[in-house]
Amino acid sequence: MPPTVQDVADWWATAVSRVEPDVIELRGRPVQEIIGGMSFVAVIWLLLRGEPPTPAQEKLLEVALVSSVDHGPHAPSIAVARIAATCGIGLNNAVASAVNTLGDVHGGAGEQCMRMLAEVAARAETGEPVERAASSVVAKWRARSRYLPGYGHRFHTVDPRRDPLLRHVEEAVADGTVAGGYLRAAVAVEQILATGRARPVPINVDGCTAVIYGELGFAPPLARGLFVLSRSVGILAHAWEETGQGRRNKGPIPPSITPTYLPGSGHALET
Amino acid sequence: MPPTVQDVADWWATAVSRVEPDVIELRGRPVQEIIGGMSFVAVIWLLLRGEPPTPAQEKLLEVALVSSVDHGPHAPSIAVARIAATCGIGLNNAVASAVNTLGDVHGGAGEQCMRMLAEVAARAETGEPVERAASSVVAKWRARSRYLPGYGHRFHTVDPRRDPLLRHVEEAVADGTVAGGYLRAAVAVEQILATGRARPVPINVDGCTAVIYGELGFAPPLARGLFVLSRSVGILAHAWEETGQGRRNKGPIPPSITPTYLPGSGHALET
Amino acid sequence: MPPTVQDVADWWATAVSRVEPDVIELRGRPVQEIIGGMSFVAVIWLLLRGEPPTPAQEKLLEVALVSSVDHGPHAPSIAVARIAATCGIGLNNAVASAVNTLGDVHGGAGEQCMRMLAEVAARAETGEPVERAASSVVAKWRARSRYLPGYGHRFHTVDPRRDPLLRHVEEAVADGTVAGGYLRAAVAVEQILATGRARPVPINVDGCTAVIYGELGFAPPLARGLFVLSRSVGILAHAWEETGQGRRNKGPIPPSITPTYLPGSGHALET
Amino acid sequence: MPPTVQDVADWWATAVSRVEPDVIELRGRPVQEIIGGMSFVAVIWLLLRGEPPTPAQEKLLEVALVSSVDHGPHAPSIAVARIAATCGIGLNNAVASAVNTLGDVHGGAGEQCMRMLAEVAARAETGEPVERAASSVVAKWRARSRYLPGYGHRFHTVDPRRDPLLRHVEEAVADGTVAGGYLRAAVAVEQILATGRARPVPINVDGCTAVIYGELGFAPPLARGLFVLSRSVGILAHAWEETGQGRRNKGPIPPSITPTYLPGSGHALET
Repeated sequence: MPPTVQDVADWWATAVSRVEPDVIELRGRPVQEIIGGMSFVAVIWLLLRGEPPTPAQEKLLEVALVSSVDHGPHAPSIAVARIAATCGIGLNNAVASAVNTLGDVHGGAGEQCMRMLAEVAARAETGEPVERAASSVVAKWRARSRYLPGYGHRFHTVDPRRDPLLRHVEEAVADGTVAGGYLRAAVAVEQILATGRARPVPINVDGCTAVIYGELGFAPPLARGLFVLSRSVGILAHAWEETGQGRRNKGPIPPSITPTYLPGSGHALET
Repeated sequence: MPPTVQDVADWWATAVSRVEPDVIELRGRPVQEIIGGMSFVAVIWLLLRGEPPTPAQEKLLEVALVSSVDHGPHAPSIAVARIAATCGIGLNNAVASAVNTLGDVHGGAGEQCMRMLAEVAARAETGEPVERAASSVVAKWRARSRYLPGYGHRFHTVDPRRDPLLRHVEEAVADGTVAGGYLRAAVAVEQILATGRARPVPINVDGCTAVIYGELGFAPPLARGLFVLSRSVGILAHAWEETGQGRRNKGPIPPSITPTYLPGSGHALET
Repeated sequence: MPPTVQDVADWWATAVSRVEPDVIELRGRPVQEIIGGMSFVAVIWLLLRGEPPTPAQEKLLEVALVSSVDHGPHAPSIAVARIAATCGIGLNNAVASAVNTLGDVHGGAGEQCMRMLAEVAARAETGEPVERAASSVVAKWRARSRYLPGYGHRFHTVDPRRDPLLRHVEEAVADGTVAGGYLRAAVAVEQILATGRARPVPINVDGCTAVIYGELGFAPPLARGLFVLSRSVGILAHAWEETGQGRRNKGPIPPSITPTYLPGSGHALET
Repeated sequence: MPPTVQDVADWWATAVSRVEPDVIELRGRPVQEIIGGMSFVAVIWLLLRGEPPTPAQEKLLEVALVSSVDHGPHAPSIAVARIAATCGIGLNNAVASAVNTLGDVHGGAGEQCMRMLAEVAARAETGEPVERAASSVVAKWRARSRYLPGYGHRFHTVDPRRDPLLRHVEEAVADGTVAGGYLRAAVAVEQILATGRARPVPINVDGCTAVIYGELGFAPPLARGLFVLSRSVGILAHAWEETGQGRRNKGPIPPSITPTYLPGSGHALET
C-alpha cells in the first residue's frame, strides 16, 4: 500500500499540543484559558504530565525548580554560558552551549539519585526495614562507583539548600500531598553515610530535588529535564551579565596570565 | 606587575550569585530565604534584574512566559527536539539542539519587535502623535524587510494568544503597574496594518510578549532570552514524549515514504 | 599553601598545542612547517595521536573519513541541520545543533562496534578460533540488545560503502600497515549473521569504519569523534544548501499538509 | 488541490546527495568511486561546490583548513570543549557546545574580512587603484567598528600562520590557479595599516584564510563554515585529551583558588 499524507501527519502526532488555524491547545486546554489561568510552574507540570497539578503539588515542584537556578560562575554550565556569550552568538546559542553540558556528571546526579532512592523505597514498601534496604543499596552502588549521587558536596559541609527543601517535603508528607517513600529512603541513606565518620556526607541539592521529583511521580530522566529548566535561569542571567561587560572572546583565565602578554593592537580578534 | 590570583578571581566576578562554603546567595539574598519565599517567575526576574518584582510585575511576566511554551511539533525548535531525542543523547542535549534554533527568525521576532515599538514609543513620548510615529517607523522598517516583526501569523488569522495577553497589559496599565507606551505603540502599528486591507495583520504572540517585556523594562535581547526559558518547557515536553515512543533515528518523514523502502533487518542503525 | 598563578596555568596545561607570542606549535611542531607540509587528514591524526601518521596510515584514515560524510536529508543530523539553518542562526550554530545529535544511536554504533570487535579480536589473539570467539561475543551482545552495532542497514541490503572500505583494509593488512585482528573479527561476525538466514546482515559503514579505526589504534570513543569530523562535512553542505533556498522556519513537513492551511499574510514569523 | 506524498518528498529535495536502497551518491557520484578516489579535502569541496576541485585548488583549500585547527586552550571554543568534556556528555556533545561558540566574534572575522576584501577587489577591478580602494573601504569600515576583521592579533606581532599562507596564495596566483584580487586587496589593506605607525597590524590567520576562500570562489558565510570544519579538529583533540585526565565538572579556575576551599568528601558532584 503506498504511503499517504496521513502517514506523514501520524509521524508527527503528539498529545502535548494541538495547533490549527486560530486554535492552540496545550494538553487539550485552550491557550486562552491557560494564560492568566495557570502559573508557569503549573504549565510545566501540565505539559510534562498531561493534567494540571494540585496547588500543593505545584508548590512542591516550585521549591525544587527555584533551588537549582544557579551555583556561581565556576559551575561548568555557567562558565560555558559566560564564555560563549562573548563570542558573537545569540543568547539562545549561549544558553544552548551551556545547557548541553548538564550531562551525567554535571546534571545527572539527580536522575541517578532518584533511581537509587526508588530502589530503596521499593524494597521498604515490601516490608524490609528502610535502614537495611538503604544499607544494601548503598553497598551495591559503592561497588560500582566511588560517587554516591545526591550526597556530599565539594564546597559545602551542609548544602544550604538541604534544610529548606527537606522541610517542604516533610510538610507535604504531613499533609498527605506525597507518600514519603523517597524522603524516608533519602534520610536512611544519609544516616548510613554519617555513621562512624568524622565528617558526615549530607544530602545535597541534587538529592533533595530527586526526593521531590520522585515523591511527585516524575520519571528519573525528568530529574535531569527539570534541572535543565531550572538551571537555564542562572545560565541566562550569567550570559546576559557577561554580555553587558563587553568582553570579546573571553578565555578561562585573564590575559594578564598569558606568558609575556603583549598589549593588544586594538584590532585583534583572537582565533 | 605580575598577575596575581586576585586577577583570576576578578576575571570571574559576578553580581548574580555568591557561592562560598555553606553559603549560596542569589543577588545578595540567601538561597534559604528564596526557597519557599519566592516563586519561580520571581526568581527569574530577580536573577535578570537584581531586585525582586512586585506582585503585579510578576503576574505580567508570568502570562508572557506561559503563552509561548509550545507551538506544536512543526515549529522548528520542537521538531528538532523530537528528532534529537531519538538519537541516543540526553534530554539536556536534545533541549540544547532545539533551544539553539531560537534565532533571529524563529525566536528573534520579539527582540526586533521590541526595538521597533521602543522607537515608536520614544517618539510618542516627545509629543508626536503615536499614529504618526507608528506610520513613520513602519514605513522605515518595511523599506528594510518584507517582514514586520511581531505582526501576522502564517497559521492564525488572529493569534489566539493575542487577546488574553493584551487584556493583561491593559489591566496593568489601568492599575499603574506599567506605563503603557509599548502597548499604545503596538496598537497603533496594528491599526496601520488593518487600514485599507481585506485582511488585517494583527499582533501575534511575539508582538504581545514584546509589549509585555518592554513595559516591564527588559532590554530587547531579553525578549529572546525569556522566550528561550518559555519555549524550553514545550521543547522538554516534546522531547520527553518522543523518548517514550521508542523510535530510533527519527527522520523528518516516515520511512514508508522512502523510495522503495525495504523492511528493516532488525539490526539497522541508519547512519 | 595559598594558590598561585602557576596553579592556574597548570589547570589548563595541554600537550596538544603551545601558543605564545609569535609561536604556535601543534604537538611540538611549528605551525609554519605544518602548513603545506602535512595534509588535513595527517593533522587530524597528529592532534589526536601526538605523532604524524605514516602515508599508509593516513590513506586508511582518509577513506574512513570520506565514507561517512553524508547519508541524505532524512538522516536525523542532516534534517536538524537543514531545519536549524532556516531559523536565523549562524552556520556554526546549525552545525552544532546537528553534530549534537550524533549520539549513542545515531553516531555511536561505530564506538560500540569497535568495543565488540575488540573483544572478539582479543580472544582470537589468545588462540581461540575467531569464529568461536565471534559466536560467543555476538550471543552475549544479543542478550543485551536486539541491535548489533555495525551490522545491517534499514535501507541497504548491502551498504554500498562496505566493499570499497573493506578492500582498503585488506590491502593495508596485506602490506603490513595494520595487523588485521579487527578485520578478521568483523568478517567472522558477518558470517555468523549470514548463516541459516534468508537475508544476510552485512557489515555497514559504522562497522567498516570501526574496523579501520580499530586497526589504526584509535580508542573506541574516537570512532564517534572521527565520525563527527566526517559527518560535519555533509551537515555543513546541507545547511548551506538550505540557506540558499531562502526558507524561513522550515518545519519537518510542507505547510501544504497543515490542516486547512491559510496562505501567509506576507508578515508571518511563526513562533 | 490536496497535498500529496510528492509534496513531502519535494520539501526535502537536495542536490547534495541521493540515497536509495543500495545507492549512495554524493553530488551525482557513486560513493564507491569517491572512497579511495578522492581526498577528504576534495570531498569537502565537492559537497559544498557541486564539482570536484582541481589538484591546485585542493592544495590551496588544504593549507587553509590545516592552518586554523587549534589556537590553544584559552581560545573560547577550546576552553568550552574541555569544560564540557568533564560533564558526562558524549564527545559529539562537547564538540557541539564548542563549535556553537564560533560566532561573529570568535569565528566570524574571516567572513567579515572576506566581505571587506571583496569590496576592495571589486573596486580595483573597475580600474580604481587598489591602494585607493583599500583606503576608502578601510575608512568606511573603521567608521562602523574599531575592529578591522582579519588584521592584527592580541598575542602575535606577526601571526606565524601569515607568511606560509600568503606564500601559497602567491604561488597559486603565479601559476594561474587563482586570479589574485583578494590577495592584492589584503596586501593593500595591510600596507595602509602599517603606514605611519610604530607597530604595524599585519594580516592574521582569519584574513589569510579569507583571502584563500575568496580566491577559491567560496561565498563569505562559508569562511565561517570552513573554519568550523577546521577548528573542529582542535576542539575534538582537546576534548579527548581532557577526557583522559579524568576531571569531573572542571571549572574555569582550579579549585585551590575557591575562597577557603574545603577538601572534598570524595562524594561531591558539584551542581
